[in-house]
Amino acid sequence: MSDEMQAAEKKRTGRRPGGEDTRGAVLAAARAEFGAKGYQKASMRAIARSAGVDAALLHHYFGSKDRLFMAALEFPIDPRAVVERVVLAGDRASVGERLAAFVLELWEQPAIRDRLLALLRTAAASEEVAALVRGFMVTELVGRLAAVLDGERPELRVELAMSQIVGLAMARYVIGVEPLASAPPEELVPLLGRTVQSYFDAS
Amino acid sequence: MSDEMQAAEKKRTGRRPGGEDTRGAVLAAARAEFGAKGYQKASMRAIARSAGVDAALLHHYFGSKDRLFMAALEFPIDPRAVVERVVLAGDRASVGERLAAFVLELWEQPAIRDRLLALLRTAAASEEVAALVRGFMVTELVGRLAAVLDGERPELRVELAMSQIVGLAMARYVIGVEPLASAPPEELVPLLGRTVQSYFDAS
Repeated sequence: MSDEMQAAEKKRTGRRPGGEDTRGAVLAAARAEFGAKGYQKASMRAIARSAGVDAALLHHYFGSKDRLFMAALEFPIDPRAVVERVVLAGDRASVGERLAAFVLELWEQPAIRDRLLALLRTAAASEEVAALVRGFMVTELVGRLAAVLDGERPELRVELAMSQIVGLAMARYVIGVEPLASAPPEELVPLLGRTVQSYFDAS
Repeated sequence: MSDEMQAAEKKRTGRRPGGEDTRGAVLAAARAEFGAKGYQKASMRAIARSAGVDAALLHHYFGSKDRLFMAALEFPIDPRAVVERVVLAGDRASVGERLAAFVLELWEQPAIRDRLLALLRTAAASEEVAALVRGFMVTELVGRLAAVLDGERPELRVELAMSQIVGLAMARYVIGVEPLASAPPEELVPLLGRTVQSYFDAS
């Protein structure tokens, strides 16, 4: 929690906000609410109430629900960045290659990779976490990408493209199968990009 | 262990082979040897010695190392069946669709699906199991499929195809993202088959 947020909190409630403790309480309340209700039904108001902070302040400092989710779960892929840097950054015919490059760039960073692997393992082991990640991805990413596709079943085709990306990550970083694990990203981007593009193009 | 194997074992060693206990001892010895040495370096002879059975008898009843591996790990995908029912069952231009159909048919069977999910979870949580599955798949499946492909980097392209299949399984059966989780196999086979085929075709 920022100094400004602490000061505002102190002024509003008259109690010591506890600095990092308050931020920790907000994130813990968010994890509990997301875990209990799922992403779609979780409410910012309920999280604020549970953490004992003002709802307007929560919105002001954490922004919208997707931002709070990313902070609470240390979720390292920002759907807004995907749309901005992939969908809007060039023409439709090369969106597959941009998405492949964007995702591989994330996975190649050790800190992000560790966090993604931890999430993948937790989701594979826990139905609750799988449901939570599913809710976030469907609401915040699949819908945004599907909205720009022509043709039938755009959500299904976005999810097939995402399944190729998750599968590549499993094979390369979890199973570590060779030669895929050591192939340079420059070799993988066009191959992966072509597959993603083929799902995105109207069939 | 079959009655015949028990009788032969009893005749050879003069001791009671213990029936299912002997089979259990062989499988436990196999799991220990595969776990310690990995798939490629594990030896049938060492497994026989560790279980206290004759090596020739082990070969006779469990067949080759891939068969013993499948029995010991309850591994539900038979690489020989993939080659026979997918690669040799029709022309090269439709091998992608046959592979997609074959794999989805396996995953749609609840007992096989449960076993595959358990393996996926264990491999995601344990580097030792991941290494074991990797060794088996690379030795017994990737090589066989790559051998029939034209063009450069056939192993890499086989692994990209397999990564799409694993990723689809993750998205459909583990994460359960909709509409992918409920799409009928008939809708998925052509889409998945086209992707697998594009990796198999020389680029």
